[in-house]
Amino acid sequence: MLDEVKVIELKQNVFKKNEVTADKVRDHLKNHKIYMINVMSSPGSGKTTTLVRTIKELQPEIRIGVLECDIDASVDAKTIVSAGARSIQLHTGGMCHMDAEMTQQGLDEMGIEDLDLIFIENIGNLVCPAEFDTGAHINISILSVPEGDDKPAKYPLMYEVSDIILINKIDAKAVFDFDDDKVVKDIHELNPKAKVFFLSSKTGEGFDTWTDWLKETVKEWKL
Amino acid sequence: MLDEVKVIELKQNVFKKNEVTADKVRDHLKNHKIYMINVMSSPGSGKTTTLVRTIKELQPEIRIGVLECDIDASVDAKTIVSAGARSIQLHTGGMCHMDAEMTQQGLDEMGIEDLDLIFIENIGNLVCPAEFDTGAHINISILSVPEGDDKPAKYPLMYEVSDIILINKIDAKAVFDFDDDKVVKDIHELNPKAKVFFLSSKTGEGFDTWTDWLKETVKEWKL
Repeated sequence: MLDEVKVIELKQNVFKKNEVTADKVRDHLKNHKIYMINVMSSPGSGKTTTLVRTIKELQPEIRIGVLECDIDASVDAKTIVSAGARSIQLHTGGMCHMDAEMTQQGLDEMGIEDLDLIFIENIGNLVCPAEFDTGAHINISILSVPEGDDKPAKYPLMYEVSDIILINKIDAKAVFDFDDDKVVKDIHELNPKAKVFFLSSKTGEGFDTWTDWLKETVKEWKL
Repeated sequence: MLDEVKVIELKQNVFKKNEVTADKVRDHLKNHKIYMINVMSSPGSGKTTTLVRTIKELQPEIRIGVLECDIDASVDAKTIVSAGARSIQLHTGGMCHMDAEMTQQGLDEMGIEDLDLIFIENIGNLVCPAEFDTGAHINISILSVPEGDDKPAKYPLMYEVSDIILINKIDAKAVFDFDDDKVVKDIHELNPKAKVFFLSSKTGEGFDTWTDWLKETVKEWKL
């Protein structure tokens, strides 16, 4: 009798709807030659600081918009607008992640005309955001040195779905035990194709490895 | 310019859909005189143990079904079936909470005929499940003594949405610093109407305060 317990996989049903919307969002942007990047991390890893420095290095050649997603605060969108990009603040009202429908709503409200590159700054959380396709063309996750090099082992899905991992706050390395080789090895075991960049969004150290890659990618996307 | 940052409240849009489905589920069960309870807690607080003892005390007079929700394991539904209730296992495939549509799918698969009482054993998590109306008639959260008496202060939403809080594992009180008065006070500050029962699902101590209330409630529901 115990072997006959019925098991229902809810995933397919619930996630399929989201994937259909995500593909629609992705194709629509592609048709307009706009590249969209979903940025994920724990709270405090430096998502906003990284975006601000990226915007300053890429504008005005590359025109940038940012969907700033937060449970209920509105400070990040103001910071992004100060840096010179277009931005709107999305309040998820307690939701722990963005999904494709929420992204669609954000894009409609922000307006995508005259943009080359859009960032989604996702909710600060290493679990739930990794589950949901936002409709972005690539996923980036930021791991800051003070968080520790064990994060890929502890949150494997986040690293499986991330195309690029930015190891941030390398200027703080002297005071933290952070094993670069171990973290790269752990990431590549989960996701052999992932690109890993080491940088400091505060000092700018190593930052051009990331922005060079990004400029090149956006240029190719426009062709 | 900074004051002009557009703020979009996604909550209304995303949660409204869920609420409509939740109300439909709730009304449908009410029409069939079936009472549904959503059970939430951290992992390891004793949701399954509490349900097993509850089932044993209530059956066969009250006929019980359990939607066992888990990321991907299937052990809990088997435990419930061994205890004599109907149960199916729902795999959320990584989702951190149940919503009303997932509940509806689970009820359709389990079948609700000949049941008086249905429990949803939600995903072990104090944040996300509290955000989503499952369609249950009441919410219960379990807080076990070893987790500490600071949980209502740290996870207020969970206690705002819970009609009943079961303080579990009171048999372990000798070895933990757990202030009953403080926890009741903190809960009632968030939710003055919440009922708090102190019990041990392992030893049975205090358990009849909970099951007496439940028997009475299900009886009234049938009238």
